[in-house]
Amino acid sequence: MNIIRTVRSVAFSSIPNRTLSTTRSLSTPSAQYTAFEVNDKTGIATLTLNRPPVNSLNLELLTEMRNCLKDAETNKCKGLIITSSSNSVFTAGLDLLEMYQPQDERVKSFWTALQSMWMELYGSKIPTAAAINGHAPAGGCLIATACEYRVMLPNFTIGLNETLIGIVAPKWFVSAFLNVVPRRVAEQAITQGKLFTTAEAHHVGLVDDVVNTKEEAIAKCEQFIASFKNVNPYARALTKQQFRIKELQELEQQREKDLQIFLGLIMQPSVQKAMGIYLEGLKKKSKKQ
Amino acid sequence: MNIIRTVRSVAFSSIPNRTLSTTRSLSTPSAQYTAFEVNDKTGIATLTLNRPPVNSLNLELLTEMRNCLKDAETNKCKGLIITSSSNSVFTAGLDLLEMYQPQDERVKSFWTALQSMWMELYGSKIPTAAAINGHAPAGGCLIATACEYRVMLPNFTIGLNETLIGIVAPKWFVSAFLNVVPRRVAEQAITQGKLFTTAEAHHVGLVDDVVNTKEEAIAKCEQFIASFKNVNPYARALTKQQFRIKELQELEQQREKDLQIFLGLIMQPSVQKAMGIYLEGLKKKSKKQ
Amino acid sequence: MNIIRTVRSVAFSSIPNRTLSTTRSLSTPSAQYTAFEVNDKTGIATLTLNRPPVNSLNLELLTEMRNCLKDAETNKCKGLIITSSSNSVFTAGLDLLEMYQPQDERVKSFWTALQSMWMELYGSKIPTAAAINGHAPAGGCLIATACEYRVMLPNFTIGLNETLIGIVAPKWFVSAFLNVVPRRVAEQAITQGKLFTTAEAHHVGLVDDVVNTKEEAIAKCEQFIASFKNVNPYARALTKQQFRIKELQELEQQREKDLQIFLGLIMQPSVQKAMGIYLEGLKKKSKKQ
Repeated sequence: MNIIRTVRSVAFSSIPNRTLSTTRSLSTPSAQYTAFEVNDKTGIATLTLNRPPVNSLNLELLTEMRNCLKDAETNKCKGLIITSSSNSVFTAGLDLLEMYQPQDERVKSFWTALQSMWMELYGSKIPTAAAINGHAPAGGCLIATACEYRVMLPNFTIGLNETLIGIVAPKWFVSAFLNVVPRRVAEQAITQGKLFTTAEAHHVGLVDDVVNTKEEAIAKCEQFIASFKNVNPYARALTKQQFRIKELQELEQQREKDLQIFLGLIMQPSVQKAMGIYLEGLKKKSKKQ
Repeated sequence: MNIIRTVRSVAFSSIPNRTLSTTRSLSTPSAQYTAFEVNDKTGIATLTLNRPPVNSLNLELLTEMRNCLKDAETNKCKGLIITSSSNSVFTAGLDLLEMYQPQDERVKSFWTALQSMWMELYGSKIPTAAAINGHAPAGGCLIATACEYRVMLPNFTIGLNETLIGIVAPKWFVSAFLNVVPRRVAEQAITQGKLFTTAEAHHVGLVDDVVNTKEEAIAKCEQFIASFKNVNPYARALTKQQFRIKELQELEQQREKDLQIFLGLIMQPSVQKAMGIYLEGLKKKSKKQ
Repeated sequence: MNIIRTVRSVAFSSIPNRTLSTTRSLSTPSAQYTAFEVNDKTGIATLTLNRPPVNSLNLELLTEMRNCLKDAETNKCKGLIITSSSNSVFTAGLDLLEMYQPQDERVKSFWTALQSMWMELYGSKIPTAAAINGHAPAGGCLIATACEYRVMLPNFTIGLNETLIGIVAPKWFVSAFLNVVPRRVAEQAITQGKLFTTAEAHHVGLVDDVVNTKEEAIAKCEQFIASFKNVNPYARALTKQQFRIKELQELEQQREKDLQIFLGLIMQPSVQKAMGIYLEGLKKKSKKQ
């Protein structure tokens, strides 16, 4: 299975308007890789990752995501749904081009942006849900597990597969995974670099529900968010924080150290070489098409 | 569903004597809201909450409970069962009258008594079991999860529903809940303020068994306590402590801070107002009957 | 069920050679209670406990085990399988003779050797698997839960049954158990001193698979180890460490205190007396046979 296949054919603008409600965009004019809309009827925000072909997470996309997350909170949205404009990839994870022969300042900004986006999402005061309408390896799994609810379309894969490519999932990737699945399952899966199929992910609780279409996935997320309609939002936020404050504080206190570990990891000659070979392969493949 | 309905018709004295064994009361003459009996044959103590109509936890009830728990330990009972004299409510949780327009000293004593009772129960050296013969929201769930075993009658509800009434379950409420159910289940349920039906509670492991009558529930608790009959009580107590010492120490070290958080929470004008409206509604309903 | 029955009839040398591959022994000539072989074809090491009749863990066996574990890592074996030469007992746990009327230096060395062996196994950089081909109470369960994978033959038992014999499973025994099964299951089982049957152990996840023969058990372990064949070993080791470093550090920092707790526990007159009676019973039984 090639989860990195080109999906340029799915233009973002072709996404059908799901509801009759009007939606308004809160995105700044500079939004390049995301679409951010708030449904005026439900008050629910939808953040659509839109960086074809595979929503690779680069500095700009991560920065936009964080800004959208902050906007959703500031605007007191009822909840936030994250999904993808692609019909085969939720996100393929971190953009290798950010890590291959990187410029010092850029790569630091990149990792810091990932930390900031994750802290914003994992600690968000509003209900968060992932409509996983495509593959979600590595960074894709990180985003999904940072949400409070996950629904997935069939026949895709999700997991922290870092060990397969010779790197180590940072501690906070693991912590968020452990917030969702039992420790026994997590240890085996993450050491193996296991990518769960949708059915396997559902079986172990890594995703909560499975539906057949993106529309149904969005609807499930809306149902989840609606389950809080009688709940005091302030009390809800403080309660959620009780479950997540430890991981957030740990990363906050270790940001610089976490950055240095990441840099030490990717700057190893063997890792740089592996990335180079991989990217060369992608280029050749791209030319053939 | 109205879990606060009046159940005055169930007089405590009408509870049939379950066994032919003699029982003796260890309660002090001043016991007002509880009955505490030790079965001479089995050595098992039963603490029955008896503050009609819904066993609202006030300062006196909490103080009596703690004294009973200490007595059971001091008298080296084989185990302790907590149940209710009502046939519809285990306990409806904290008494709002303790928190509405409270006197400073009284409300502090109230919360401190709740902390003390919980530490005594959660850390009890002897086996503890809850025969949940009625609804167990909020404080009722807190008491149930502090025990080592839970059996419940059908068609009642249990859960930490604090967010529904605009308050936040303290950290130790959450810790005890997490001692019983998986983290994924706990986060979703407590942020939603979910009240589990008996069947749902059984499905997620929040209760261990379901039976049809109070007598069967007591019998199940006795079976659980009997499972330790070949176990060294001292070794058992130290082993149990290994599982629970962390939460006990955390609360012990944070008692004053926890009290201040509670006071800050309930003294908010919006919370006081909500309690006032709720209590006014109860009064009117009571007059109609 | 008598799990201490004599199994001398199973001579270690009679174990059939499972594969056609050549194996080489890495054991030092002094190996007395273990056999340690590496399959040249698969690169997988097998450590067979071989101290008839019941593989009681004494100072020498624990020291040999630790040396084998270190050898397997140093030799970059693909993985390590632990099994028993007995066909009825994996290991019966700690050797009572080490704890009954002990010499001061010897008993300290004994406990320190147990700590060292466990830290080596729990923190091993290579994949570890237990082929549990017999009963595994107490120390046997400790060894099994320190591995990453467990497969068990039917109709045996496994568990931390310390409370049944009046002692307390140390904190690190409990931690490793909690790495495998849910907290609710662990608290009840360890306070009860519960020995799970193979079927029960499988049901709660204490073992991952059940097969009918030792050969199938070894094959299952080999499959588990092979699941890492595409994984970078260095990344795998660091990832595993993220899951286990906390327990390893805790014991490392508490070794002396843990030793003193152990000595205080076994030197209690009541515990010494109980061991004496137990050992006397074993002697008589042995003479009758």
